[in-house]
Amino acid sequence: MSKSVETAVLAANRAFYAAFRRRDIKAMAALWSVQGPIACIHPGWPPLTDRDHVMQAWREILRNPDSPDIQIRGDEALLLGPTVAMVVLVEIIGGQGLAATNVLVLEEGEWRLCHHQASPMAAPFERVEAGPESEDEPPRGRLH
Amino acid sequence: MSKSVETAVLAANRAFYAAFRRRDIKAMAALWSVQGPIACIHPGWPPLTDRDHVMQAWREILRNPDSPDIQIRGDEALLLGPTVAMVVLVEIIGGQGLAATNVLVLEEGEWRLCHHQASPMAAPFERVEAGPESEDEPPRGRLH
Repeated sequence: MSKSVETAVLAANRAFYAAFRRRDIKAMAALWSVQGPIACIHPGWPPLTDRDHVMQAWREILRNPDSPDIQIRGDEALLLGPTVAMVVLVEIIGGQGLAATNVLVLEEGEWRLCHHQASPMAAPFERVEAGPESEDEPPRGRLH
Repeated sequence: MSKSVETAVLAANRAFYAAFRRRDIKAMAALWSVQGPIACIHPGWPPLTDRDHVMQAWREILRNPDSPDIQIRGDEALLLGPTVAMVVLVEIIGGQGLAATNVLVLEEGEWRLCHHQASPMAAPFERVEAGPESEDEPPRGRLH
């Protein structure tokens, strides 16, 4: 993966978490692919592949005033094809580490989400907390 | 997605579960991409992106004589690019439903795994058990 592609993929992935953190449903909706299929698997949820269901779930999650803050660690970009990439990372939500995958497609010159899945990690928070906050760091994606 | 591509993607996905079920580490290893990056997130585990770590984890899981049988339900194929597809589905392991994603790349004419993630569903087993067993059904992938 070229450095510029890696940077663009990781930036799109961080924009996703920025929208999540700001509870900005409009920004969140704009970050998802509109031309291809999408899917989403929230922690504990069944898979969602219907676009309306995916967006309705985001509305419910972002409107919930009790949902805790989200931070990310160790975001790593992997290029799967000329127009498809995935980012694997650890999310920190309310002291719980979640292993997460975001798959992105290049659409109209922008990397857009086509899949998100997050699942709780069994490891204690200390292990995932040890790394630096991704937002303050240069991309640490793996080059392929 | 053309019917032939959908059939090939779902067949590769089922071969992955057949290798899982047979605890066949050689078949499992042969199903993964060798030319591009791979990643794997087992339930409760942190993300693995190093090829040796991914394969070592599979060896440990498949060698464990206590690991229960695995069945799948509702496998749905989504084409993300000419050479990249994902399958979302529900796994049934020891009475527990897990929402799972497999991402596959077309490599040397074969659809090969480049990512697997499974996360426990909160819904009771009855909900995911209601559907027919995927192996006995024609592919029910969504056409795009």
